[in-house]
Amino acid sequence: MDVVNLSEKFGRFNDYWSPKIAGEINDMYVKLVKLKGEFVWHHHEQEDELFLVVKGRLRMQLRSGDREVGPGEFIVVPRGTEHCPVALTDEVHVVLLEPKSTLNTGNVVNERTISELAHI
Amino acid sequence: MDVVNLSEKFGRFNDYWSPKIAGEINDMYVKLVKLKGEFVWHHHEQEDELFLVVKGRLRMQLRSGDREVGPGEFIVVPRGTEHCPVALTDEVHVVLLEPKSTLNTGNVVNERTISELAHI
Repeated sequence: MDVVNLSEKFGRFNDYWSPKIAGEINDMYVKLVKLKGEFVWHHHEQEDELFLVVKGRLRMQLRSGDREVGPGEFIVVPRGTEHCPVALTDEVHVVLLEPKSTLNTGNVVNERTISELAHI
Repeated sequence: MDVVNLSEKFGRFNDYWSPKIAGEINDMYVKLVKLKGEFVWHHHEQEDELFLVVKGRLRMQLRSGDREVGPGEFIVVPRGTEHCPVALTDEVHVVLLEPKSTLNTGNVVNERTISELAHI
């Protein structure tokens, strides 16, 4: 049973918008992801998605208005809710918590879709 | 859709070993809890349990040997695994992530069992 140090894990990869699996709790994964720039608008049909910011500043764009999330803060985007994350700082480090079935681009499949995630 | 600031939420309560619900993701709750001293040995039959330390230092006592968890670190205790958390510092602030069905004392029911959790 390993103790996972978030900072050490984030130091192990440099690619953006490519979540890595850092733990699992029943049917959920804990994923680590680095964000830069803007993602794509999408939603998840069945999955709620938690974004916990550990470094940098995230804007969660929503059709109902944007939310800003800083270090030590989280937001839960409920299933069915269109969203588009944007990194407000050069780089944002995010801990994601979401069902194992969650695809990063949700209902959209494009060149940013990653269906096989690495473990870290 | 609220942005949850962990530090602000931890400032709202002062009781120990009494998890507060701060969010939900499908069938999981995010809970905040303050630890002081030692808890009780227990396990959860069906539920894995994630402990993310945000302040202080936690020792997770396990039959296989203890693990220490500091700020910015997490450990997942798998279902069926006996464990007993101990605060190594005066107070430890922990984000828990676990299925909604999880009882704080697991298979043990005693004076420290809390079956109705407050939302925060």
